[in-house]
Amino acid sequence: MRTSDIIRKKREGDSLSPDEIRHLIQGYAKGEIPDYQLSAWAMAVFFQGMDERETADLTMEMVRSGDVVDLSAIQGVKVDKHSTGGVGDTTTLVLGPMVAAVGVPVAKLSGRGLGHTGGTIDKLESFPGFSTSLSTTAFVRQVNDLGIAVMGQTAALTPADKQLYALRDVTATVDSIPLIASSIMSKKIAAGADAIVLDVKTGGGAFMKAEERARELAEAMVRIGTHVNRRTVAVISDMDQPLGRAVGNALEVREAIDTLRGEGPADLTELCLELGAHMVVLGGRADTPEEAKQRLKACLADGSALEMFRRFVQAQGGDARAIDHPELLPQADHVVEVTADRSGTVSALESETIGLCAMKLGAGRETKESDIDYGVGVVLEKKVGDPVREGDVLAVLHVRKGGPVDEVTEKLRFAIRIENHAVSAPVLIKGVVTP
Amino acid sequence: MRTSDIIRKKREGDSLSPDEIRHLIQGYAKGEIPDYQLSAWAMAVFFQGMDERETADLTMEMVRSGDVVDLSAIQGVKVDKHSTGGVGDTTTLVLGPMVAAVGVPVAKLSGRGLGHTGGTIDKLESFPGFSTSLSTTAFVRQVNDLGIAVMGQTAALTPADKQLYALRDVTATVDSIPLIASSIMSKKIAAGADAIVLDVKTGGGAFMKAEERARELAEAMVRIGTHVNRRTVAVISDMDQPLGRAVGNALEVREAIDTLRGEGPADLTELCLELGAHMVVLGGRADTPEEAKQRLKACLADGSALEMFRRFVQAQGGDARAIDHPELLPQADHVVEVTADRSGTVSALESETIGLCAMKLGAGRETKESDIDYGVGVVLEKKVGDPVREGDVLAVLHVRKGGPVDEVTEKLRFAIRIENHAVSAPVLIKGVVTP
Repeated sequence: MRTSDIIRKKREGDSLSPDEIRHLIQGYAKGEIPDYQLSAWAMAVFFQGMDERETADLTMEMVRSGDVVDLSAIQGVKVDKHSTGGVGDTTTLVLGPMVAAVGVPVAKLSGRGLGHTGGTIDKLESFPGFSTSLSTTAFVRQVNDLGIAVMGQTAALTPADKQLYALRDVTATVDSIPLIASSIMSKKIAAGADAIVLDVKTGGGAFMKAEERARELAEAMVRIGTHVNRRTVAVISDMDQPLGRAVGNALEVREAIDTLRGEGPADLTELCLELGAHMVVLGGRADTPEEAKQRLKACLADGSALEMFRRFVQAQGGDARAIDHPELLPQADHVVEVTADRSGTVSALESETIGLCAMKLGAGRETKESDIDYGVGVVLEKKVGDPVREGDVLAVLHVRKGGPVDEVTEKLRFAIRIENHAVSAPVLIKGVVTP
Repeated sequence: MRTSDIIRKKREGDSLSPDEIRHLIQGYAKGEIPDYQLSAWAMAVFFQGMDERETADLTMEMVRSGDVVDLSAIQGVKVDKHSTGGVGDTTTLVLGPMVAAVGVPVAKLSGRGLGHTGGTIDKLESFPGFSTSLSTTAFVRQVNDLGIAVMGQTAALTPADKQLYALRDVTATVDSIPLIASSIMSKKIAAGADAIVLDVKTGGGAFMKAEERARELAEAMVRIGTHVNRRTVAVISDMDQPLGRAVGNALEVREAIDTLRGEGPADLTELCLELGAHMVVLGGRADTPEEAKQRLKACLADGSALEMFRRFVQAQGGDARAIDHPELLPQADHVVEVTADRSGTVSALESETIGLCAMKLGAGRETKESDIDYGVGVVLEKKVGDPVREGDVLAVLHVRKGGPVDEVTEKLRFAIRIENHAVSAPVLIKGVVTP
């Protein structure tokens, strides 16, 4: 099998056989196939695409390139959730306890990641003492006993995907739907998921800005799931403005607590109920999303979701008193209000700029080596569609002494646009893709 | 300037600026840009193409990546000829003396190359004593004194092209018209050409099998020439059957001598007159190709073309007596006739197979290290359209003792197809592309 013939075949728009895809991916993972052949192949895929079967084969070859987490000792259907990433996305912290409260086991591997704010692990570490360094045995036991556990990802999952992603990043081959879809799905499958719920973001703050492209990605991932026997549902959700109000680690934890108390922002609550409902159905704890939503709402109303969160934080060594006394969470040195310099309606909240503002204040990592400041961030007081009067508080900055307040304030004023005409709040759930 | 942004720009179908092309090619030549970025870019070019200006810029950046031969000390317009390669292509040996005889200076750099038979240098070295190891001073002096010289290519011409070609070869990005066109043109320009005549082959034995693609390539090269101020004419010629009758080094030299004597095969003579006519016009020695053709024919008829060849061989140390006594050229040990096993008309001569037969007999190099046997090869006695009777000689093999006669005979029988219905001889000159 000659690698250049495989590249040519894809270049000509033909489907690659399972063997050809195995040759490419395992050969690449072993260092037998050089970067320059994989990058040419990736560019050919950008232009010619991959069919359903090929994309599924690619996914599974990336899974096979590394370790696969064995969650078989956990009873029940392990449903994982993945978000394509946005700004101020606090869903994981809310969803985990919510669906665990209705009996779906939550066995989550998480990372730290780069970005505007930290990853799920960073946010959880806002709780003093919280640790995700569990052994696999302890992790499995906690899920079976309590219903939920989060473990830092230590195993070498999908090394071929990591290698390929790094290559795509420098060869302008990132934005190919089959390559993105197989990358995401391979990670979830390697992490042991039986079923997967995807939150595919669209809009200014999302990776897929155009709704049509987000839908294509969602469909591609659901098709992979069907092919590899992992039931998969994708929700397409708006990321034209940040989700909820908080952008920052401990600030988002507070918002998650509020939401689990039934007092969270409307959009965050709505998205968590939507994603959670599909997780509950896939987990076999309800027959329809509507029924699942009712059960989830009941868990919010009777406090059982919040109680699950409390026990979860405690089980992993965190100071769960912070749930009722948020002042125990890390806090910034002071707050600065950003006020409206005119009256009107909020017409746009540029998610990416707001995310960058939080990062500038110290909430995120610019490089792997950066330290995260758990306390800092931005809390939006107005969302798209809200009327404002001159002098109203638009956002509150949580900052450290010496933080770049002026710079961030100025950026934020540009990112929060106010117009004279009425603007309606955007629709949050743009669609659901099922097998 | 980020390389990945340049790749993305091409991927999106935009034209790259001169600076961007310089960044890519000089960066690559210096080893600052890795193979995996160039191969992704080449694949993007395969799909998106390059416009006229870009292709010309690419050509000149490859020229700039290495040495450029300075032929300014040679009087007159230096016209170079290039063939995209075929089987039994003896044109260079005929053309050089022919156009030199009418006063166009021929200052040719040549190589050995891989293939069915040797390169021009190998063929010339069939003359005992012939050497192409001239100093540049001696080379220039010989062209000015005699009108023709051939020098082995020693300078490091277009290293970026060599590097890129090797990369394209293993990443399925060879067959892109702008990349092929710029590669060919860069080599001719670096070799010091003022004007260029291209022989673009089409048909089964050619790199560009489809005539339409050959025409596209011809047009792309003529456009580059116009852009970089090198007058360029391209002739599209048939390579569905081998050109002339001989495939093998000394055998082709004999055929060249016959042709210079006015007694060569019709197709080889026709093509040499066509290509030569354009060289003579570009060299300023005739106003029209028709006038040029008359002058060339006169040089064949009055013996001055053959005399030029004689002096040329002598000037470079070769035994010119071999021109009148071809038995002084290297010869095979014996000849074997391949006869027709049925009557009919020759309907096809598979050039590639016939070329491979000559290589099997020892006429070509399979690897750079292979030795060439000057004497061996194949001489076709019938061409497409010729009637044959059972038992007629179709071809004569010139072989060494112990050569693979049976294997080659069998292959050759398949390559020379005979059918019952009448077949007309193919048209040799398919078109001419001028600026």
